[in-house]
Parts: sequence; structure tokens; C-alpha cells
Amino acid sequence: MTTSNLQAALQPRSIAIIGASQNPDKIGGRPVDYLQRFGYRGKVYPVNPGRPEVQGLRAWPSVDALPEAPDLAIIAVPRAEATEAVQQCARIGTRVSVVMSSGFGEGNSSEGAALERAMVADARAAGMRLVGPNCQGLANFSNGALATFSTMIKECPPADGHIAILSQSGTLGMAPYGLLRRRGLGVRHAHATGNDADVTIAELAAAVAEDEQVRLMLLYLEGMPDPHNLARLGWIAQERGLPVLALKSGRTAAGKAAAQSHTGALASEDRVVDAFFEQHGIWRAQTMEELVDGAEMYLKRWKVGGRSVVTVSNSGAAGVLAADAVTLHGMQMASFAPETRQALEGILPSFANVSNPVDITGALLTDSSLFTKALGVIAQDPAADAFLVAFPVAGAGYDVESYADAAAALEESTGKPVVAASPQPDVAALFRQREVPVFTSESRAVAMLDQLTRHHQRLEEARRRFAGTPLHTGGLLEADPTPASPRMVNEAESLAALADAGVPVVRHRLCARADEARAALETFGAPVVVKGCSSAVAHKSELGLVRLGLRTEEEVVAAFVEMQETTVARGLPFEGVIVAAMERGQRELMIGAHRDPVFGPVVVIGDGGKYVESMPDNQLLLLPCTRDEVISRMQRLRIAPLLVGVRGDPPLDTHAFVDAVLAVAHLMLNATDVQSVDLNPVIVSAAGQGCRAVDAVLLRA
Amino acid sequence: MTTSNLQAALQPRSIAIIGASQNPDKIGGRPVDYLQRFGYRGKVYPVNPGRPEVQGLRAWPSVDALPEAPDLAIIAVPRAEATEAVQQCARIGTRVSVVMSSGFGEGNSSEGAALERAMVADARAAGMRLVGPNCQGLANFSNGALATFSTMIKECPPADGHIAILSQSGTLGMAPYGLLRRRGLGVRHAHATGNDADVTIAELAAAVAEDEQVRLMLLYLEGMPDPHNLARLGWIAQERGLPVLALKSGRTAAGKAAAQSHTGALASEDRVVDAFFEQHGIWRAQTMEELVDGAEMYLKRWKVGGRSVVTVSNSGAAGVLAADAVTLHGMQMASFAPETRQALEGILPSFANVSNPVDITGALLTDSSLFTKALGVIAQDPAADAFLVAFPVAGAGYDVESYADAAAALEESTGKPVVAASPQPDVAALFRQREVPVFTSESRAVAMLDQLTRHHQRLEEARRRFAGTPLHTGGLLEADPTPASPRMVNEAESLAALADAGVPVVRHRLCARADEARAALETFGAPVVVKGCSSAVAHKSELGLVRLGLRTEEEVVAAFVEMQETTVARGLPFEGVIVAAMERGQRELMIGAHRDPVFGPVVVIGDGGKYVESMPDNQLLLLPCTRDEVISRMQRLRIAPLLVGVRGDPPLDTHAFVDAVLAVAHLMLNATDVQSVDLNPVIVSAAGQGCRAVDAVLLRA
Repeated sequence: MTTSNLQAALQPRSIAIIGASQNPDKIGGRPVDYLQRFGYRGKVYPVNPGRPEVQGLRAWPSVDALPEAPDLAIIAVPRAEATEAVQQCARIGTRVSVVMSSGFGEGNSSEGAALERAMVADARAAGMRLVGPNCQGLANFSNGALATFSTMIKECPPADGHIAILSQSGTLGMAPYGLLRRRGLGVRHAHATGNDADVTIAELAAAVAEDEQVRLMLLYLEGMPDPHNLARLGWIAQERGLPVLALKSGRTAAGKAAAQSHTGALASEDRVVDAFFEQHGIWRAQTMEELVDGAEMYLKRWKVGGRSVVTVSNSGAAGVLAADAVTLHGMQMASFAPETRQALEGILPSFANVSNPVDITGALLTDSSLFTKALGVIAQDPAADAFLVAFPVAGAGYDVESYADAAAALEESTGKPVVAASPQPDVAALFRQREVPVFTSESRAVAMLDQLTRHHQRLEEARRRFAGTPLHTGGLLEADPTPASPRMVNEAESLAALADAGVPVVRHRLCARADEARAALETFGAPVVVKGCSSAVAHKSELGLVRLGLRTEEEVVAAFVEMQETTVARGLPFEGVIVAAMERGQRELMIGAHRDPVFGPVVVIGDGGKYVESMPDNQLLLLPCTRDEVISRMQRLRIAPLLVGVRGDPPLDTHAFVDAVLAVAHLMLNATDVQSVDLNPVIVSAAGQGCRAVDAVLLRA
Repeated sequence: MTTSNLQAALQPRSIAIIGASQNPDKIGGRPVDYLQRFGYRGKVYPVNPGRPEVQGLRAWPSVDALPEAPDLAIIAVPRAEATEAVQQCARIGTRVSVVMSSGFGEGNSSEGAALERAMVADARAAGMRLVGPNCQGLANFSNGALATFSTMIKECPPADGHIAILSQSGTLGMAPYGLLRRRGLGVRHAHATGNDADVTIAELAAAVAEDEQVRLMLLYLEGMPDPHNLARLGWIAQERGLPVLALKSGRTAAGKAAAQSHTGALASEDRVVDAFFEQHGIWRAQTMEELVDGAEMYLKRWKVGGRSVVTVSNSGAAGVLAADAVTLHGMQMASFAPETRQALEGILPSFANVSNPVDITGALLTDSSLFTKALGVIAQDPAADAFLVAFPVAGAGYDVESYADAAAALEESTGKPVVAASPQPDVAALFRQREVPVFTSESRAVAMLDQLTRHHQRLEEARRRFAGTPLHTGGLLEADPTPASPRMVNEAESLAALADAGVPVVRHRLCARADEARAALETFGAPVVVKGCSSAVAHKSELGLVRLGLRTEEEVVAAFVEMQETTVARGLPFEGVIVAAMERGQRELMIGAHRDPVFGPVVVIGDGGKYVESMPDNQLLLLPCTRDEVISRMQRLRIAPLLVGVRGDPPLDTHAFVDAVLAVAHLMLNATDVQSVDLNPVIVSAAGQGCRAVDAVLLRA
């Protein structure tokens, strides 16, 4: 029923407007206007107790008076009346209500929040779905079902197409609509879900993603209330090869409670969001420009893959700028085969550049065919993965029509990405006419090619990752938004728990008495480390509770006595000292883990030691994660060059470290009472010689 | 004479066109057309042996036939005739020639380069200045002196204004011209200098910067051939408060010869360019967008200073996006005074947000005056340094005119930066009409506010730096583009030279015989370091020529013997061993220096140790540099947090390190035979306890 009710939201056979207004500029008047104006073929039932007719349509005095239960009801009345309207709609069997009224959960009012909860409960009890409240509403331009009060639809008249926009905010959903429509692109869906009290943006997006005509989906999110459905959306998009881009704003304070264990706290919530999007193949746009500028490219059915670019221009300078941009974005300038260069030499004047970037020069003014001929040659060279044609200046004397034709033919013959750059609107228009995506500058064009290829790669990785998994059923890990207040366990217990979980830890012994410490020195052999053990102390070294390199019985006993005194003097529980072997290795790394209130357990890996907070170098992984993913995140660390050995160092035992990371991940997935883990340092030796955690802080629920 | 001849280039009383064409679409025809069409009031002399008249003007058969020596001659004939035309023009006393002809130094042809040199020599011998060759030419729109063949002038008709564009490339100069003109901005100068064979872009820019009407200067550079005049331009701009932005493309291979000493080589040439621009207050734009997007802001006479931003919008989401962008750019969201919040509460509805970002909400549709009233209150709050008003959606029902009026009034009453954001062209147009700079999105607006304030700060710093210096005479340090091939001196000599220069170095002794090494151990006390000394070895540790922590005479002697054998076995000169005290300290930093072929001596400072190349963390300084500049660059290092002490560490002796950096700088400035210095590590101790260079590689010419 859930799905079919959401289908009713997208394809309603009938729509009632509760609070329908005669004035087409009022919130309750606009949907009545739009439904008549933009091709909706279902039944429209204005509900208005004061008028027999609204905007030329027969009106009904109340919900109960309606001749049938509408598929969709728009609630456009003030809050005081809205809750009752929802009850009435639910009672008569309406399948979905779109509640535009505000004053509910969006403010800080507990009264509004309570009303919202009650309203949702009423709807759910009757099997009715509810969009909103405080939402601008839904707009499906494929069938004219415009249950929205957006003014932008009048500013930029709709045209059906292949783009879907879903937004929690009404304005931020219609801003991209306007930008895309002004570029002549059709938009099929533009839905704004407001408070997401029942139907979330993610659930609706997953339903929209089933629309085969949708070939690009843009999301604007302010919160992440429904990661299960977002994961399901990702899964559907992977299956369909549908690119999904999300602009996610606003960094909330949530998740900070999980931060008592320092290393785990390095994973800021926003990074978790980044990791989630990456894992599910969704591109996170940083700005509105990133969200919308590439739309024409995304709608193409190009062979997107490699990252070698060829640039052809009538300006050497544009080629230089493009080459700079390609390098800056980590792409490559393709190297032509000798035959290509020879062939270009046969076509172009002697002072032209026949290497990439190709500079046809002002000779193009004399012979317009040079461009077409050059592209014909370049099309044959397999080195190029994508093409950029750049015209920083063109106008009278330039046969731009023929250049645009040639660019379109290049795309046709190769199936590879072809984009253009021109700062002149009239020049750009000629490329746009031929559906060659065109940007104002070389650097912008290259930036979007970069985004397209990286997004494509991310989507492919996610597809491989989730193919055949039950994720489409929402099988995301459960997160606990309100964890019990965590309790630190002492280092000895922490090390024991980690050793049980399969993490190699330092050879050590917890010594409650001085003579035990003396015996431990004998067992491990000098030098040893002595550390005070107290479940109330997270950072021992700052209290003087760590001594390195102790060699004699006297030193060890003195350390025991002193630490006992220090701990007791501060009124903290003294649970003995840990005597441990001095581990030697090549590099100190770290492993942390905590539970994100939205996304559940995450692991953080990175450079270790004393400065993990002042000079952080770490990467975050959502769980479950694979060995390959751990390795790929290690390769993004600043210290990645050290993993393979530099300046005569042997390579590090990455294999052992990854095993330890996976063991921590396994612990987090299975021991649900473990709130966080902080292993720093994990001393990693040369390849084949393992790694060992020498310090551990573990918090339990 | 140089200056007055350049004034003739900008304000010629008469212009001859050698190669004048009847066809206004040909290179030799366009200037004739433009000079008649766009208000030039001086005399125009077409030179064409075949026609009595060109485009309605009397033509002259030859240069020699001209009735007077023109102030400016345009040479628009093929290369073969151009050199002779230059000679003729020079002979009759022409003050400046603009050579459009190509085929000279711009290709790889040595013939063309030789012709170019000869042509420049001819001009100089006669006291004539030469712009070009291979240039599009000069355009001064204030007096119609359009000695250019740009087609863009027809595409976008000129209008005088306050912006000057100077470019080596013709196309890349006219692309910004077109973008700015289409936004309705006047452009006063658009000059393209081509090969810069005589008059360089920098020299011409310095002359243009003297034009009091110029209030914004944009440069497009492909090379940096004339840093003296660029420094002079910077100086003039600092004096006038003229913002100069430069888009510099193309990373050349020059400067790589200076890279034998590893640390010095970390300063890539492009970083030197960055440092140069920063030092001289010039903003380096990374893209065409950065170059042109802020023009309206730069032309304002705002009080630019602090970086606290206030955002007011009809959309909460836009405020969130703006706040994200402000944080991302390292700016702050201003905090309102309690009175401001109270006053806003009195004006705005209860569900509006009266904190920054201010969300007026859709209530604006009901009461258009809310925006004006809110801005009136906010204007009084001193916390704001700049304002952003954002309308992601507006249209029918919104009184955008009044919002734009209010924004203009806010600017008027505060004198502070006020910018707007709207994706809707018609909404944006209303702000533009009132000269409120407007951007498509919040993030773009914030990015440009960030650029404006940082550029302003950079310009102020440069002004303070150079005030009263003789830099305006071009007193930049001499660089040597063709240094002698450098010779490495051995470590003992290197350390001695650095000690002489005032750099504290490790206590050490060069020992030619084993018994000397034994004696040195006694002098310094165990443990010591023993290092093989050879002027042929830069990286000793990779050859096993470094032993740390030797404690006994036997160990020291064994090391001596072994290193001697190793060195000799490899056929390298053995110059003894250095026995040195084991320095202890808190952090290993590094100091490098080399000579850039364009900009002269530079110093590189950063984190030290074994991984300076695999994990670089360093900053570059042009010389001479001040103590404050060294400190400011240290604060940009990734390791900056360690300088002040973290996690219980004492602060580092930054003072001593800066002294050492300044000593190296002094050495580079005074010992011109020193090609490069590489001190790594420099062991820095806690504050008050100094620093010492323990390893040194020095190259001499």
C-alpha cells in the first residue's frame, strides 16, 4: 500500500484542494490554476465552504461532501483547520495528503511538534500517507499533477523532460528548476516535501527513481532523516544507472554526544554524510552550480570512462588554460598517435599546434573547414576519452555553425563526451542548438567533465558493491539516535576486548601490586612501558601516567608507587598499572570507531601518534566495509606514500593493519554495546611483521 | 622618452595603418573602420600603395609619403614586409609601432626569432617603441584610439568605463571584455601585446595604471618576462589603491635547472609566481570566472575590511547555504546585538528567524515592507562587515523593486559591501539597475566577497611593505636566467659557510683520519653522529654514510673505516668523516633556498626530516623578506599548531628558527655565488633553547 499510495502522490486520478481560493495568486488558489493550465486530466475538486465555484470549477463545501475520496488532497488551510482536514481526508479514504500549512515541527514550538505527531498518527491509522507539513508540494509535469503553490512555475513555464528535482525546501527546489528551464531543459518532477513528517524526501525520491523517463535526479537536503530510503534510492539508481546529485546543507549538532573518545570524534558528522553519499554512488554537490551546471552532460548517453582529454581551439591561450585545468583536476591531456599528428600537419598551417591542445589559430578565419577537418582526424585517435572545443572569441568572420556541426558529428561518431566553451552567448547558443553541452569557460567545462567522470566511476563502484545485496529492502544498519550515556572501561579491559575481537595488541599485564609489576618486567624483558590504569582517565600522558623505556626493577616499582599516588591524590579509581613490552615498529597509525546517530557504526583510520587532533590525517568508512574499501581509504591519506616505503624505508605491513581495521569493524557490528573504540597508536612494522595496538580506549553503553 | 612614447601608444594624436585595407573585415581594414566608428579624433593615415582612398579616407602610397611622422603606426602587413615597414616608421620618427604581423618569436623558428630581434633593434636605435609583434593591438576606448583588429569590438560595442584589460593573448584579452560589456560594464582599455618583444605587458600595464580613471585592472599572462615592471605596476597600484587581478596560465620548464638541491627544488616555479603576486598585492585569479565575476564589487568605493557577514533572505534554506559558504571560506556569520534581535522580533512574524542568517520567510509575500524594515534595523548593528541579500525564488507577488531599493539604501547608509544573489535573471536585473552587485547563487556571492576582502587585505599589506621604497624605479633583485652549472661543496664546507652566515649549526668536526674521529668523540662526548663527507654525495643516508648514536671509540673508528671503503669503492672522493654531537630537540624543520631564473633568490621553509619530498609541508618566500613575513608563512604550515605547543609540548623556539631563516636569506642576497642551500633537518628546541642545522647541502656557481 505504501508504494501504491506514493504512486497516487505522483499519478493521482483525482485531486481535492482543501482551502481552494478564487484568487490564483493565493496558496490555495495556485494549484487550482496550475491544474487547469498545465494539462492535468484527472478530476479536480476545490473544497471551499463559501463558494459554489472556484476559478471556474464546481466547488464542494466540505471534504465529506466530495463525490469520491480523492487520490490526493492538498491541505491549504491554516494550522488550526489543517489537522481536522487531515482527519477528514483520512476518514474518507484519501490515499495521500499534501499539507502545505505551516506552524508544525519546523519551529521550536513543542505545541507545533505535538500537533504534527498527532496529525501523522491520524493519517497512518487510516492508511493515508502525508507529505509535509510546511511543504510547497508536488509537481509532476509529465501528467500536470501540480499539487504545488510554487510561483516559479509561472516565471518559467513547465516542459516535461528527463530531470527530477526533490527538495525539502520549496525555494531551493524551484531555484534549480528555474535555472534548468531557462537553459531550455525539460523538468519532469519538482517535489518539495517540507518537514518530512511521514513521507520523506528519500522515500519519495526512491519512488520517482522508478520512473523510467527520469535520467537525472537532483536533491536538496537539509537533514538526513531517512538513510534507509536514501540507501534504497541509491540502489535503484545504481541498477538503472541513474545519476543522483545531492546538495546537502546545514551541519547539525547531532552526533557530538558520540565524541568522548577522541579519535572517533575526528569523524565529523558532515564527513559521515560524505561517506554515505560516496558509498551509495550519489554525488555530493558543494554548490548550486555543481548541482545544475552539468545537467546537459548527464542527460547524454555517452561512453564515460577514462580521463584523457583532447582540446581543440582557435586560440593557443585557451588551450593552455584548458591544459592547466585538466592537470588541476587530476585528468590527463591525451597524447596523440604519430599518425594523428602527421595527419593534422597535412591539414593545418605550419604555425598551428598539432599536439594536444590543438591550436588551429586565426587561420580558421581564412579557412573555416580547418576545424571540421581537424576534428575528423582527431576522432580516429583512440587516446581521447573526452573532447573540449573552445572558442574564447568568435563572431563575424567565423563560421561557428560549421564548428558546432563538427562538434556534434564528433560526438556522433565516437560516442564520447564532447563539450564546448565560449563566453559569447550567441556562439554558445549554436552549440546548444546541436545539443553540445557548452560552458562559459574552459575551466568550467573541464571542472564539469571531471565531475561527470568521477561521478560515473563512483556510481559504478556502488553498483558493484551492492549488486545482489538486499539493500533495496532498506537493509541499512540500525542507528541509535539516543544512545545510553557511555561508560569508559579501563585500558586493560579495553585491550582484552580488542584482543578477543582479533586485534593484535601489545604484550602486557595488568599489575595490581608492585611485585606483579616487577615480575612482568622479568617476563617481557627490559625496556618496558608502565601505564597507570584507571577507567576514569582517557589521556594518561597528560597526568604523568605513562613511563617509557623503564629498564630496572627499581624504576618499575617507583613508577608503580608514583602512579598510585597520583591517581589516588586526584580522587580517581586506581586499578593497577599496565606493564607492557616496548613495541618497535615503523609508523604509528590509528584506528577509531564510533556510532553515528544517523548512519550507525563508522570506522576512522589514519596517521597516529600525539598529534591526531592538531594535524589530523584520517579517513572515515561506513560499516560494513570491505578490505578493498579500507585499502582505498588508506590510499587517500596524506601519509599514503609511506605505506609503500620511501627514502629506503621498507613497505609497511598494510595487510596486517587492514586486518586490524576489519577486526574493529567486526566488533562494532557485533558488539552493539561498544559505543566507541580509540586505538592510538597502532604501531605498524615492515611488511610481514604485523602491527600492534599499544593504547586503547573503549566506551561501552 | 620611454614613458612619453608609451603615452603616445595610449593617446596618439595621429595613427598610420601600414597595410590599410578597404575591406573592414580584414586585419588591415578593421582599425581603419574602428577609428572612424568609435570616436577617434586624431589624424588617421591609411597607407596602401594601390589605392588613393581607403574606407573613405585619403590613403598614402608609402610610409615615406606620409605628411608627418605619426605618433602610432599599425603594421598590418605580412612578415616579409613588416620588418621593412618598421624600419621606415622608425626612420621618419614614429613614436610607437604596433606590429600585428606574425611569424616572429612566437613559433619555434630561429629565423623568426632572429627577425624579431633585428626588428626590435631597428626600433630601439631610432628611439621608437614597438608593441608586438604577433599582437592584436591596443584599444583605448576613452579616446577611440583603436589600434586593434579584434572582432569582439563589433560583437560587443565599446563603452568607456573604469576597467583596463591587458593581455598577451588577443583572444584571452577580449573574452573578459565581452563578458564585462555584456554585463553593462564600461571598459576603458583592452590591450593585447603579443610577443612582448620590446614593450612588455607589464610596462604597458604600469603606464595604464597611471590613468586615474582606471579603477580595476585585469591581466592575462602566459609568461612572466618582465618582473621589474610588474613590480612597478604593483607599486603604482598600491599607491593608488588600484586592484589588479592576474590570470596567469602555462607552467614552463624554466627553473628546473635550479633544482638539484632537493629541498630548494620543492619550490615549483608556479609557487614562485604565486609568491610574487602576493608580495606585490596582485590577486591571482585561478579561472576566468575569478578574473571577471567580481568586477562590479571592485568598482565600488566600499569600506572593505572585516569578514563578518550578515545574510537576509526570504528562504531559510538560502540562509543555511550562505552560512555554509561563509564558514567554508573562513569568514564569520556576524552575531547580532540583543537590541538588533529585539527590534527584528518587533518587525518580523514569530516564525521568522531574527538571528543571522535572517529568514523573513514567505511572510514577505503578505507584507513587502518587512524586507526594508528588517534591513533598516540590521544597518544599525556594527557587527556586520558585509551583507548578502538572497532571493532564491521571487516573482509575481514579490515586490522585488522595493527589496533592491532597500539593498541600495543599506549600502548607501553603511558604506559597507552589499551583494545580492538570485538565480532569476529578471530579479537580478532589478538589483543590477541599482548597482547592487548580484550573483546567481549564495555560494558564488560569498566566494566573491571572500576574494574581495582577501585581495583588499593583500593590497594593504603590499602597500605597507613597499611604502617609501625605491621599488617604483624597478629596484627588483636581479635574477640570472642562465646560471653557471652549480658545484656541490662537501658538508663540512657547507656547514662552515652557513655558520659564517650566522646560521647555528651542529657542533662537529671534519676528521680526515681515524684518530681525529676518536678525539672528536672525546670532545663532544657520547653519543655522536658520524657521517661520510664527500662533495659528490647529496644523500648520504641512502649510501649508508650516516651512523647515529655511536658511543665508543671502537664504533667511531669502525664507522670511519667502513665509510672510507664505501666511498672509495664507488669511485667517489672521500674527504673524511664528520663527527658531530647528537642534537636533541623537539621538531625537525627545514630551510631551503635557491635562485629562480626569473625572480631571483627564494627561501623555502617547512617541516623537515626524511619525508620532505613524499609529504611536503612547506612555504616559499621571495627575497628580501621580513621577519613578519617569515612568521606569517610559518603560520600557514600544516605543522603550525606545533609551533605554539600542543598536547603538553612546550612551544618551539620559533624566534631562533626565524633568525636562521633570515640568516640564510641574507646569505642568498649577498653571496651571489651560492646557488642553493638545503638545511634538513634543522632541529628546533623548546622556546629559548635555539635551533641547529645538522645537515647541509650547498651548491656554488
